Amino acid sequence: MKSILSELRNEVLRRIKPKPEERERLRTVADSLLSRIENLAQSEKIRCAPVLVGSAARGTWLSGDHDLDIFLAIPPNEDLNRALELARKVAPIYEEKYAEHAYVHAIIDGFDIDLVPCFHLESASCMKSAVDRTPFHNKYVTSRIKGLEDEVLLIKQFMKGAGVYGSELRIGGFSGYLAELLILHYDSFLAALEAASSWKPGEIIDLEGHSSRSHQEPLVVIDPIDPSRNVAAALTLDKMMQFTAASRCFLRQPALNFFFPPEQRPLSDQELLEYIEERSSLFILIEFSSPNVVDDVLFPQLRKAEQSIRALIERQEFSVLRSDVGCYGIKAFILLELDVWALPNVRRSIGPPVWVEMHLDRFISSHPSPLSGPYIENGHAIVEIPRKFTRVQDLLLKEMARLSLGKHISEEICQGYNIYIGAELARIKDIDFRIFLADYMMAKTRII
Amino acid sequence: MKSILSELRNEVLRRIKPKPEERERLRTVADSLLSRIENLAQSEKIRCAPVLVGSAARGTWLSGDHDLDIFLAIPPNEDLNRALELARKVAPIYEEKYAEHAYVHAIIDGFDIDLVPCFHLESASCMKSAVDRTPFHNKYVTSRIKGLEDEVLLIKQFMKGAGVYGSELRIGGFSGYLAELLILHYDSFLAALEAASSWKPGEIIDLEGHSSRSHQEPLVVIDPIDPSRNVAAALTLDKMMQFTAASRCFLRQPALNFFFPPEQRPLSDQELLEYIEERSSLFILIEFSSPNVVDDVLFPQLRKAEQSIRALIERQEFSVLRSDVGCYGIKAFILLELDVWALPNVRRSIGPPVWVEMHLDRFISSHPSPLSGPYIENGHAIVEIPRKFTRVQDLLLKEMARLSLGKHISEEICQGYNIYIGAELARIKDIDFRIFLADYMMAKTRII
Repeated sequence: MKSILSELRNEVLRRIKPKPEERERLRTVADSLLSRIENLAQSEKIRCAPVLVGSAARGTWLSGDHDLDIFLAIPPNEDLNRALELARKVAPIYEEKYAEHAYVHAIIDGFDIDLVPCFHLESASCMKSAVDRTPFHNKYVTSRIKGLEDEVLLIKQFMKGAGVYGSELRIGGFSGYLAELLILHYDSFLAALEAASSWKPGEIIDLEGHSSRSHQEPLVVIDPIDPSRNVAAALTLDKMMQFTAASRCFLRQPALNFFFPPEQRPLSDQELLEYIEERSSLFILIEFSSPNVVDDVLFPQLRKAEQSIRALIERQEFSVLRSDVGCYGIKAFILLELDVWALPNVRRSIGPPVWVEMHLDRFISSHPSPLSGPYIENGHAIVEIPRKFTRVQDLLLKEMARLSLGKHISEEICQGYNIYIGAELARIKDIDFRIFLADYMMAKTRII
Repeated sequence: MKSILSELRNEVLRRIKPKPEERERLRTVADSLLSRIENLAQSEKIRCAPVLVGSAARGTWLSGDHDLDIFLAIPPNEDLNRALELARKVAPIYEEKYAEHAYVHAIIDGFDIDLVPCFHLESASCMKSAVDRTPFHNKYVTSRIKGLEDEVLLIKQFMKGAGVYGSELRIGGFSGYLAELLILHYDSFLAALEAASSWKPGEIIDLEGHSSRSHQEPLVVIDPIDPSRNVAAALTLDKMMQFTAASRCFLRQPALNFFFPPEQRPLSDQELLEYIEERSSLFILIEFSSPNVVDDVLFPQLRKAEQSIRALIERQEFSVLRSDVGCYGIKAFILLELDVWALPNVRRSIGPPVWVEMHLDRFISSHPSPLSGPYIENGHAIVEIPRKFTRVQDLLLKEMARLSLGKHISEEICQGYNIYIGAELARIKDIDFRIFLADYMMAKTRII
């Protein structure tokens, strides 16, 4: 076992650990950028100290990643816009983005560069926004991670393989910083997996032993530089448990494909039709133009729309087996799979108890000519009346646009949308969509 | 209003109050029976005092009823069988029946006669069985009801009209004794209806103010001669509320048809098919030979079978809109109306939470090749697997006989049964069944 594990480690590291040439090249690009910014700052008379942060700064990036995060720190009494002006001058072509504050994104020498204005703070207690935290995270990890870089690479790649890496809202998984903290806490890749194997919701990790408030999230990792913050706040229960299950499986039977799972093939027309027939459920795809917003805005709205539509459907006594959301190209979509999509004309409406006379009168009067009833069951007045929608398609066409689906999605839906039902799904040939469908149909997670 | 009510009273009493000739005739038949029994007892040397009990004894029978209940009271130290032997000699043709004890039923001079052996007890505190109570009930009511007989007749007929008269288990309504106690308690028919209009579950009526224990039933009427007994124990919540609702309606708008509702017409073939089409639900009738037991045994078993079958259906994720049971001729049946009777091949099976490792292993191992999954949702392992029964008919054919349906019904079902689906119901032409169907389809109760 030991030797299998150490062979595995070596093979994985051979593939993911940056080679000296790659390190050299990153160092060169980063150094030249930093001095370029320093010079620019001097000539513009801006008191700005650029700092390389993130995995590039800590030697914990996975081979092939080409991301450089550079923070432009200015004194806290100055205007953050001055740092932004500086950032705009670093690259001839750039794009401005917005998270909590504006920042600049550019591609230089094949690297994705983020230039992020921030304040240079003496102590973490003066932090005003999430951005201010990053330099402190950087200091905290850099000063402790020496010698553990390989463990970080291994756990990051393992998380990638398990589909739980990435704290963006689309994924809801582990951030790079969170992976590093797990290694700092548990000391090694294997020890972290062993611990994670028996995680339950409510697990608390507090590296500095200074938790200052209680959190509701399933995994709580107290930020060493900000005791009130949970580093794992974005991690969903399901991604946490996916990691727990994958850890268990790996420890039982370690294999390379935990780190490098086979790529999902797109579903062919024939496979799609076979799946639809085998399941004999009803698929409904609601497709519309993807609003022009970042994924961290889009996906929460898609999830909200998904929940609103499911609730609408279930209120009318139809039943959703499973659903998912996604986007491909310039389209976004909500996929619904129903197990009850048609219902008889008659439906029961359960009224108040007979002894609540006032409500009873109103109930009975509002159903003057029921199909059956009123009668009494379990003390309640019941009527059987015609159903408004006997097919879920009719319900969606009539009521969906009225739902609160999230601002941007509601706007797009008002512009128009397509509905594909059952085998009509095969009309969408996009490869990303077909990969999504393959993932949906298999829905396979390592659990034991 | 007053005059409408008093006109109504008069008209109802004109129809239901036994005329002098009818009283005369009943008196004659009863007297001759009683002296016949006394003579027989003397010649057989059995110390037996026959007592006329029930509504005939109290002058509270509805015109046209021809029931005489005669209790054969013997000293408590003698053998009850001696009274039974005596009963067997009263009529040349008789039939032995069994409630808590054996008794004799015979038809004499056009009257239904029950001859019931019991002990002659000095005090109600020595009672051993329900039968022993009757003579005390008789004494209690007889000594108080004088002058209120019309009120009793009115409330009994009103209860008949509302479908809530009769304490047999098939009906679950009000017994004659209970109707009399309500009149003794409230003093008049109208006062009783006024009180019942605002009954709620938990209503307690305690004529002698000596309740000795708490009861769970919706209406509790403490038996004046046995403080531990609830006279309304057999009354269901729904029949109680049906009476409450009818009382309210009558007081708002009194009418003769509360007492004499139009008779239900049997459903014609065409009406039946129209109802089925209009509702577009699925009717399934399970029909079998009625076991040779009294209704008070049959109906609880039918209700139990109905509940078992409904539970079976709902466990498999189909859905029952409404159901009922009944019998006609020598057949008994369970009628099911479904709103979901077909489901897709795929179904979800929800497993244990991922953190309960032992259960998880068992769950995943027991689904080695699911259609989809396993995946994790809300922390639980989920698989999507083929459904065992995609049509409710297949489920019933395969699994119904294995259910615990009540002893006698299980026996009959094992002998064979018929299933009628949808329009096949029209093949049953029996009038009683068609009246049952008419009642089922309309299901109309006066509520406001």
